Amino acid sequence: MSDKKKKPQKLKARLPRGFGDRSAADIRATEEMVAKIKAVYENYGFDPVETPMFEYTDALGKFLPDSDRPNEGVFSLTDDDDQWMSLRYDLTAPLARHVAENFNDIQLPYRTYRAGYVFRNEKPGPGRFRQFMQFDADVVGAPGVQADAEMCMMMADTMEALGIPRGDYVIRVNNRKVLDGVLEAIGLGGEENAAQRLTVLRAIDKLDKFGADGVRLLLGEGRKDESGDFTKGAGLGTEQIEKVLTVVVPNVGPIADDADGSKQRSYLDRLMAVIGDSEVGLSGINELSSLLGQVMAAGYGGKPLRVAVDPSVVRGLEYYTGPVYEAELTFDVTNEKGEKVVFGSVGGGGRYDGLVSRFMGQPVPATGFSIGVSRLMTALKNLGKLGASEVIEPVLVTVMDGDAEAMGRYQRMTQELRKAGIRAEMYQGNWKKFGNQLKYADRRGCPIAIIQGGDERAEGVVQIKDLIEGKRLSGEIEDNAEWREARVAQKTVPESALVEEVRAMLEAQAEDRKRASES
Amino acid sequence: MSDKKKKPQKLKARLPRGFGDRSAADIRATEEMVAKIKAVYENYGFDPVETPMFEYTDALGKFLPDSDRPNEGVFSLTDDDDQWMSLRYDLTAPLARHVAENFNDIQLPYRTYRAGYVFRNEKPGPGRFRQFMQFDADVVGAPGVQADAEMCMMMADTMEALGIPRGDYVIRVNNRKVLDGVLEAIGLGGEENAAQRLTVLRAIDKLDKFGADGVRLLLGEGRKDESGDFTKGAGLGTEQIEKVLTVVVPNVGPIADDADGSKQRSYLDRLMAVIGDSEVGLSGINELSSLLGQVMAAGYGGKPLRVAVDPSVVRGLEYYTGPVYEAELTFDVTNEKGEKVVFGSVGGGGRYDGLVSRFMGQPVPATGFSIGVSRLMTALKNLGKLGASEVIEPVLVTVMDGDAEAMGRYQRMTQELRKAGIRAEMYQGNWKKFGNQLKYADRRGCPIAIIQGGDERAEGVVQIKDLIEGKRLSGEIEDNAEWREARVAQKTVPESALVEEVRAMLEAQAEDRKRASES
Repeated sequence: MSDKKKKPQKLKARLPRGFGDRSAADIRATEEMVAKIKAVYENYGFDPVETPMFEYTDALGKFLPDSDRPNEGVFSLTDDDDQWMSLRYDLTAPLARHVAENFNDIQLPYRTYRAGYVFRNEKPGPGRFRQFMQFDADVVGAPGVQADAEMCMMMADTMEALGIPRGDYVIRVNNRKVLDGVLEAIGLGGEENAAQRLTVLRAIDKLDKFGADGVRLLLGEGRKDESGDFTKGAGLGTEQIEKVLTVVVPNVGPIADDADGSKQRSYLDRLMAVIGDSEVGLSGINELSSLLGQVMAAGYGGKPLRVAVDPSVVRGLEYYTGPVYEAELTFDVTNEKGEKVVFGSVGGGGRYDGLVSRFMGQPVPATGFSIGVSRLMTALKNLGKLGASEVIEPVLVTVMDGDAEAMGRYQRMTQELRKAGIRAEMYQGNWKKFGNQLKYADRRGCPIAIIQGGDERAEGVVQIKDLIEGKRLSGEIEDNAEWREARVAQKTVPESALVEEVRAMLEAQAEDRKRASES
Repeated sequence: MSDKKKKPQKLKARLPRGFGDRSAADIRATEEMVAKIKAVYENYGFDPVETPMFEYTDALGKFLPDSDRPNEGVFSLTDDDDQWMSLRYDLTAPLARHVAENFNDIQLPYRTYRAGYVFRNEKPGPGRFRQFMQFDADVVGAPGVQADAEMCMMMADTMEALGIPRGDYVIRVNNRKVLDGVLEAIGLGGEENAAQRLTVLRAIDKLDKFGADGVRLLLGEGRKDESGDFTKGAGLGTEQIEKVLTVVVPNVGPIADDADGSKQRSYLDRLMAVIGDSEVGLSGINELSSLLGQVMAAGYGGKPLRVAVDPSVVRGLEYYTGPVYEAELTFDVTNEKGEKVVFGSVGGGGRYDGLVSRFMGQPVPATGFSIGVSRLMTALKNLGKLGASEVIEPVLVTVMDGDAEAMGRYQRMTQELRKAGIRAEMYQGNWKKFGNQLKYADRRGCPIAIIQGGDERAEGVVQIKDLIEGKRLSGEIEDNAEWREARVAQKTVPESALVEEVRAMLEAQAEDRKRASES
């Protein structure tokens, strides 16, 4: 902030990097999508609960992936009592604080959902914002795998409620304990290896991005990317690396054709062999098996597979303790390099039994998932599943005369239309150039313009101009010749008939659109 | 932030002061209210447009009332390129930046609305939060008073759409130019008196709070409040003070009984005398008169008054340049001291012709208003106008047995209910204490519990327990004796009849509620 006191210069209008404004189309599409997701969560018995943007920094914890330095990745500042506070980087850590703070008033299990902005103080990039929206659902106080099974089914139902056909998505499930078992089996158990385990998990999480060879490097010495940047690896030996990869690489592909779940079960059996007698690993396999069983029993089996075990699912966040899951869209899109790639993850989550407990003297098991709202919206746009609800632009009441009486009349006509439920506006720019008013109506997509000059006012009439009629493509004319002849582009009617005539013209336009979409 | 590396202590779960969590009831009520407001704005031809939480600090400007020091009142931090950025303190300054940044792509007049959180880094108090929601509508590129007239009518329609009856609200209008004219007339014109003028305006803005005597002190030497804190005054002489008060004090009270606007007009005439030949003052009076005329012509006159000139309306923000307006709720409420007071303002706005221009080489006139969402919601709660839409809590599928087969069945029953559109959940807590499950259902307000133990499972049946039936007040019984006899509190039915029987029970409960509310 400038502390010089001088006359203000002309300011440059610009946003900080990584932040963006949202257009009407974007906001309307998001609202449509969020409403559909909410309906599913409500149907599952979840209620909305929200937390504010700020939390004390220590309450948030340092769970962000790829940020080992304190304060890295979050926006923080000190309050006037010198305590650090941060903008939330996800919706899970604040929920944990909320539950702990209100523990005596909350009835467990606590089933809640929330949509809201989160903030990451990271280097922005294409499609990578520093403020973005997440939509979460969580059950706190739910110790059993039945809650995780329910989460997976709810994610599947959410995808379908949004119009994503079965087969175009899959909910991929894994269990952190399985991975812990593998790590124990290769000698990375115990508190003293916690940091290395995390590096291994994050390497595995990159499987989608870098493939098996890339992960092999990240598990070993490290990997240099195309720009020459070097990421230090986990430092595992060749034998350790191959054991990890054996477990992790057979992803959803080979087991997708698995209507009765038998292939998934046989994969779990093979896994058992690698894990050996690691207790935590066995427990993870049992949980996976039980989750799968419940999902099948509840009618979520069958082909195409909706919920599938996928050992490559890790989830980047450190706080997961058991089942982890991810909603993946499996259809192809073309990436910025022109390559066909699977669309990939639009959200995920898992069990975080330790997150509430940090504040409490007792264990508080919980599980939940988070949808990346703008990423999911990109996917729905790709599928043509958004913007179904049509927005009609307002009828424009133009201004021909600026005297008090005329202005009063334009205001009144506009209000009469609005009171009849017709979206309408009076031209509010500089009215003296009439051409600008029609240009405005055209660019804005106004369906109708209302015109009343001095002569019309004297006669008590008004012109109603059909602005869509004028734009009609000649190709359409032949098919609908008869219908169209009945339509006129402009009409002069008594002021008292304004609402009725505008309504009739809007209905005719709607009929036109219907015919056009059917033909 | 701690930079010591030690084992984490048990954290204290608490929120920074001035921030709050939101309950399901609060979120649902807000959504209901926001949807109604949006419908009005859309009907007026406004489209949604949103900006992010952060702006560069210089782009926001320093327009907050009661904060003369730089950075006072806002949350600010430096970006990694050392530029200061701040969380928005209102939605108007960011909109000005948005318009200027996208000026070539925006079609003027630009009619937009947005609801969003804003942040004030102030001392929190009861009902005074550091994060709160505003709901704004603005027209940018609208030079004429017809846009301000439209804003006033839209605020009136918004109040009525929310169920606030005519007579319980009034849109109070004034014009900054009128006040500027008065200040010119008492010798406070010119650039050199800008700071003093602002102090005078802020003193007048306190009329509601401190009354004429309090404002008299603030216009003179200053005022000591009950706690002994002293606020320095504007330092006007007695004659100057009385001239200002003559103009400002006759508030909406005396002119409210004014169906044809004649009293308002006569007040404007008296005003003219005080203002003398101040050009800006005369222009302000003309604008007020024109606004009033258009509002009347559009059918917004009549009794009780909906839009009224009120010379005490100032609006605290520095950036207003012409008409200013405020939505006041005129019914009485009891304040924290037990006194009956008028509820007061729930929102307001005005013309800010200079705000976009700061970024441009050209004037960009604009006007708009902002609703304080939680304050308005408090008002609606007072009026009993919220929560009309009834939320039915979920049907609870209880858990009697933890083996894989049983769990699968409970999941399936729950899913069958959901698929039929019935809000349902399976108990996700520790199921071993069945009493806890019924306690949960009771506290949560679940209407029905589904129970299936081993015996029932063997027989393929399920118990459906009516949880509302058990709670019924004895007083109701006599009136509906016959109806009630047909209801039973618990039923055992074949699994295949689950959905059908639950639906019938929910319908019977709905019928009960209807009878209870009618009796």
